Amino acid sequence: VVDWTPDGRGVRVLDQRQLPGTVAWLDLYTLDDAVFAIRTLAVRGAPAIGVVAAMALAMCAEQAAAATPSRDAFNEELARAAAALRASRPTAVNLPWALDRLLAAAHRMAGAPADVARGLSAEANAVRHEDVAMCDAIGAHGLAFVRDGTRVLTHCNAGALATAGIGTALAPVYAAVAAGHAVSVLAAETRPVWQGARLTAWELSQAGIPVTVCTDSMVATLMRQRRVDLVLVGADRICANGDVVNKIGTYAVALAAHAHDVPFVVCAPWSTVDAATRHGDAVIIESRPRDEVAVPCGTPVVPHGVPVENPAFDVTPAALVHAIITDRGVHRPPFHFS
Amino acid sequence: VVDWTPDGRGVRVLDQRQLPGTVAWLDLYTLDDAVFAIRTLAVRGAPAIGVVAAMALAMCAEQAAAATPSRDAFNEELARAAAALRASRPTAVNLPWALDRLLAAAHRMAGAPADVARGLSAEANAVRHEDVAMCDAIGAHGLAFVRDGTRVLTHCNAGALATAGIGTALAPVYAAVAAGHAVSVLAAETRPVWQGARLTAWELSQAGIPVTVCTDSMVATLMRQRRVDLVLVGADRICANGDVVNKIGTYAVALAAHAHDVPFVVCAPWSTVDAATRHGDAVIIESRPRDEVAVPCGTPVVPHGVPVENPAFDVTPAALVHAIITDRGVHRPPFHFS
Repeated sequence: VVDWTPDGRGVRVLDQRQLPGTVAWLDLYTLDDAVFAIRTLAVRGAPAIGVVAAMALAMCAEQAAAATPSRDAFNEELARAAAALRASRPTAVNLPWALDRLLAAAHRMAGAPADVARGLSAEANAVRHEDVAMCDAIGAHGLAFVRDGTRVLTHCNAGALATAGIGTALAPVYAAVAAGHAVSVLAAETRPVWQGARLTAWELSQAGIPVTVCTDSMVATLMRQRRVDLVLVGADRICANGDVVNKIGTYAVALAAHAHDVPFVVCAPWSTVDAATRHGDAVIIESRPRDEVAVPCGTPVVPHGVPVENPAFDVTPAALVHAIITDRGVHRPPFHFS
Repeated sequence: VVDWTPDGRGVRVLDQRQLPGTVAWLDLYTLDDAVFAIRTLAVRGAPAIGVVAAMALAMCAEQAAAATPSRDAFNEELARAAAALRASRPTAVNLPWALDRLLAAAHRMAGAPADVARGLSAEANAVRHEDVAMCDAIGAHGLAFVRDGTRVLTHCNAGALATAGIGTALAPVYAAVAAGHAVSVLAAETRPVWQGARLTAWELSQAGIPVTVCTDSMVATLMRQRRVDLVLVGADRICANGDVVNKIGTYAVALAAHAHDVPFVVCAPWSTVDAATRHGDAVIIESRPRDEVAVPCGTPVVPHGVPVENPAFDVTPAALVHAIITDRGVHRPPFHFS
C-alpha cells in the first residue's frame, strides 16, 4: 500500500479514508501532500506511517538538492521538512523513529546535497524493505499457529494496510494461505472507527481470503459456539511484563478467548516492545472525540448533551496472552522483555 | 410511552423510530395504524407491544360495536382485528398472550357488542396497569441491589420505552432515584441497532438521571478500571435452569462482569420465565438482515459481497448470573424454574 510513484519522484499511497467504497491512490509530490495524507489518516498504521514519512523526507531531500547546491541551505530545508512530518501525527511512535533515522544518516554523509539526497532515498528504501521483511518474519513465525482450516478472529486492522508488507496480525494468515492452507477470518467491526469492517474485511476479500464481519458484541458468543480457533491481534505497545496496549475492544476479545480456551496471540514488530514501561497500567490512554461514538457515519445516535466514553486503546493483561509473535520469534509467557 | 389519546378513542404511542433526534407521538385510530406501528418498530419492547395490542383490539371492538348491533358480526370483526395484530410481529411473546386474553374475555361476556366493547376496554386497561405494576414490583425488589452512588451498566433498552411503566432492567434505577439515591448509568450502545445509545440514553437523560454512552467494546475495560458497580439487563427468555436469552452482546457483558466480580443481575417479568425450555442452547436464535451490521445509519462500512454475522440474541449461562429479579421477587442461584 506504499510505493514510489511510477516516475520515481513522489510517494504513492492507498487512500484508506475512502475504503471500502472507493479504491483511490494518492500521489504525494510535496511536503504538504505528505503531511496532509498522514494527518487526515489517508495513511494509517504505525509501520506504514513510518515508511511513508521516510520516503516523503527522501523526496523532499531530492527537491531541496535540485533547488540549491549549498549544503547548509539543504540541511535547513531537510530539518524543516522533518519537523513538519514529525508534527503531522504526534502520537505515532514509528514516525519520529523513521525521521530520526534519516536525519542521522544525512548527518553522517559528506558531499553535495545531490549525493546526500541519493543516500536518503536508499535509506528510505531500507526502511521500507525492512518493514516488508519484518512482516514476512512475523508471518513465518506465526505459521506454527495456523493450520489448514483454522478459523481466525481478529480485531481492528493490523494487516497489509497498516504496513508496507503483509501486515502484522494478518501476516500469519497470508503466510498460511501462501503455504496452501485454507484459512478463514472473522473480522470484528471495531467500533467506533470500524477498522475491522472497513479495512480488514476489504484487504482480505481483495486477497481472496474468506472473511466475515461481526459486531464487537458478537465475538464472545461466536467463541461460545466454537466458531473461532485462534485470535490474532496487533499491538500499539508491549510492556516489559507482556501487558499489551492495543485498539479499544482487544481486552474484551482476550477475556472471551480465555473463557473458551481459544489461544490469544499478539503479533507486532519487535520495535513495539517498550521494555521501559513495566506494565500496562503505566500507559496513558488517549481519549478521542465524542463524535466518533455519538455520530457514527454522520448520523447522531446518542442524544444531544449525553456524554460518551471514547478511550482509543485498552490494556490486555499478560495473563491472558497465549503468545507474542515478533520478527524476532515467538515469545511465550512468562514474559520478561528487556 | 403508551396511553389512550385525550379523546379516549385511540391509542397514543411514542414513535421510537425517530429517537433520539425527534420526539413524536403517534395517535393510532385504526387497526391499520396499530399494525403499522408494531410492524415498523414505532413500538418495541415485548411488554409494550402486548399493551398496545390489547388497547388497539379494545379500540377496534368499540368501532365494531358502533358499526353493528349484531353480536355475530361484531365477533367476526373482533377476530379479524386480532388476527391482523397477531401477524404484525410474529416473534414477540407478549403480543399473542395479550390478544388471547382479550378474546377469552370477550368469549366469556354475554350482551350486546357495546357492552362487550366496554368490557374489553376495561380488560385492556387491566393489561396496561398490570404491566405498570410489574415494573414497579421489579423496581421495589431491585432496590436491594442499588445504593446511593451505585454506577450501573446496562445493555440494550429494557426501560420505560419497552413497557407501559418504568421498565424492567431500569426499574431498580428509577426506584432508587425516587428513593433519593444518586445513581448513574453507563449505557452500552448495543450494536447493531443502537438501542442503548438511542433509547436508554434518551429516556434516562429525559428523567434527569446521569447517563454516559460507551461502545460495546469498551465495557470490559471500564469494568477493569472499576467504573461499574452493578450490571442490570433485561431478558427475552429465561430458561428453567436460569440461562438467559437476551440481546446480542449480553453474554460478553456477563463474561466481563464475572472477570471483575461485578454482580450481573437480570430483570424481567415473571412471564419471561419459560420453564418448558430446559436450557439456553435449546433456543433457536433469530438471524437478522445483513444491512443492520453492514450499513449502519445508511452508510456501507462492510465491503460489498463480504458476509456478516447477525444473531439478534445470545445466551448467558446461568453460572454467570448473580440474581434474577422478577415481579415475584429476587431469585438466586441455583435456579430451578418450574
